[in-house]
Amino acid sequence: METLFSHRSIRKFKAKAVEEDIVNFILEAGMRASNTGNMQAYSIVCTADEALLRELAPCHFNQPASKAPVQLTFCADFNRFSKWCRQRNAEPGYDNFLSFLVGMTDALLAAQNCCIAAEEKGLGICYLGTTLYKAEAIIDILNLPLGVVPVITVVMGYPDEEPELVDRLPLYGVVHRERYHDYSEEEIDKIYAEKEALPSTANFIRENRKDTLAQIFTDNRYPKAVNEDISKTLLAVLAKQGFMNNGK
Amino acid sequence: METLFSHRSIRKFKAKAVEEDIVNFILEAGMRASNTGNMQAYSIVCTADEALLRELAPCHFNQPASKAPVQLTFCADFNRFSKWCRQRNAEPGYDNFLSFLVGMTDALLAAQNCCIAAEEKGLGICYLGTTLYKAEAIIDILNLPLGVVPVITVVMGYPDEEPELVDRLPLYGVVHRERYHDYSEEEIDKIYAEKEALPSTANFIRENRKDTLAQIFTDNRYPKAVNEDISKTLLAVLAKQGFMNNGK
Repeated sequence: METLFSHRSIRKFKAKAVEEDIVNFILEAGMRASNTGNMQAYSIVCTADEALLRELAPCHFNQPASKAPVQLTFCADFNRFSKWCRQRNAEPGYDNFLSFLVGMTDALLAAQNCCIAAEEKGLGICYLGTTLYKAEAIIDILNLPLGVVPVITVVMGYPDEEPELVDRLPLYGVVHRERYHDYSEEEIDKIYAEKEALPSTANFIRENRKDTLAQIFTDNRYPKAVNEDISKTLLAVLAKQGFMNNGK
Repeated sequence: METLFSHRSIRKFKAKAVEEDIVNFILEAGMRASNTGNMQAYSIVCTADEALLRELAPCHFNQPASKAPVQLTFCADFNRFSKWCRQRNAEPGYDNFLSFLVGMTDALLAAQNCCIAAEEKGLGICYLGTTLYKAEAIIDILNLPLGVVPVITVVMGYPDEEPELVDRLPLYGVVHRERYHDYSEEEIDKIYAEKEALPSTANFIRENRKDTLAQIFTDNRYPKAVNEDISKTLLAVLAKQGFMNNGK
């Protein structure tokens, strides 16, 4: 339980490999997660080969975390299930957008279980959201067939750093009681006040030569033009991988 | 840790309410989950009002689980973040498809943390995937504004049943070593053999008057026509909620 509250993303790992039985334990924990109708519409590609990890690193912009000894690529996967259907005299209808979201859901719940199991075993983990940015290259490198799309990557290994716990918004900033209550200007100010008052925030703004923390997100980290570009690419990837046959 | 391996979905709950401090503990655990760039691009609507739960029940096809005392609706949410950006002299660019997937990712990782925390506190949980099917009605009932889309619901309460652990495919059926290795016909047969040999499978096929387990999925539970219909509806919902402005 303590694990849930002490999570830090780890981006620097010891050279030590992760033992095979620990990797399998983590993967088994992932497989116990809830999933849609017990279809298990996902796959996990577990990569530890050094040459292959080096090939994957540019897909994650060569960020330090991509040097971890184990990389789990979680994929929405209706390939396996559809093949099974066809072999059992059943005509699958999982080549559509809903099915992609179902597979993505199953993949992400399994991913979070894997992360918790890894941390309980003393490993550090980091999610790489870059997987959606470079889905096409990852599909190519990992040989993902029709019906399979990578949605997130988790890297893991023995931690070689001890970062501070990262701030979060206050509970009332994220949780709505009964119904959604839209935010007033004053509420937004209050919800973000603590984050904005952190010394690390002031440093971050100075380093980035911006006026506000928000500008670092909109101008540098997650700018509109890039988001739009990746959005179009992703819709094309979904079509190419067979998830956009939505009927007439 | 035991929690990860003993998860069962609970669909029958005691009338007992869940204590406020336990609910808050669960929500706090959810907020500690990894999220994208610490934007926390999600919201959780926590509903316990009986009248409101009755209003929501048809969105979940009145399934027994929808009678739980607490319902958490996890939403992709760039409304709060974008409002903050605008108030901080930054122009948000999060009204696109990638941003929806980012918000959905953040929402699902938080959801799984909440589920694990709930189970550690002795509660039972069940995911309702129906949220995607009835997103439009849920948006309406919960007053979700532009920039917010519900992606999954978790119901929770004190369990009034003790179901058996549900089967899973063998590890090698879901996990691929190094790269994806596509399945041969023989491999598919082998991966599904154990599931197909369960006595519960034979009963399920008989009850549904089908020839194979797969046909129950393709004909009854997740048929192509419904999947296509919901796919189109979902793409329209994403557009309506402001997540399909993907540039030229």
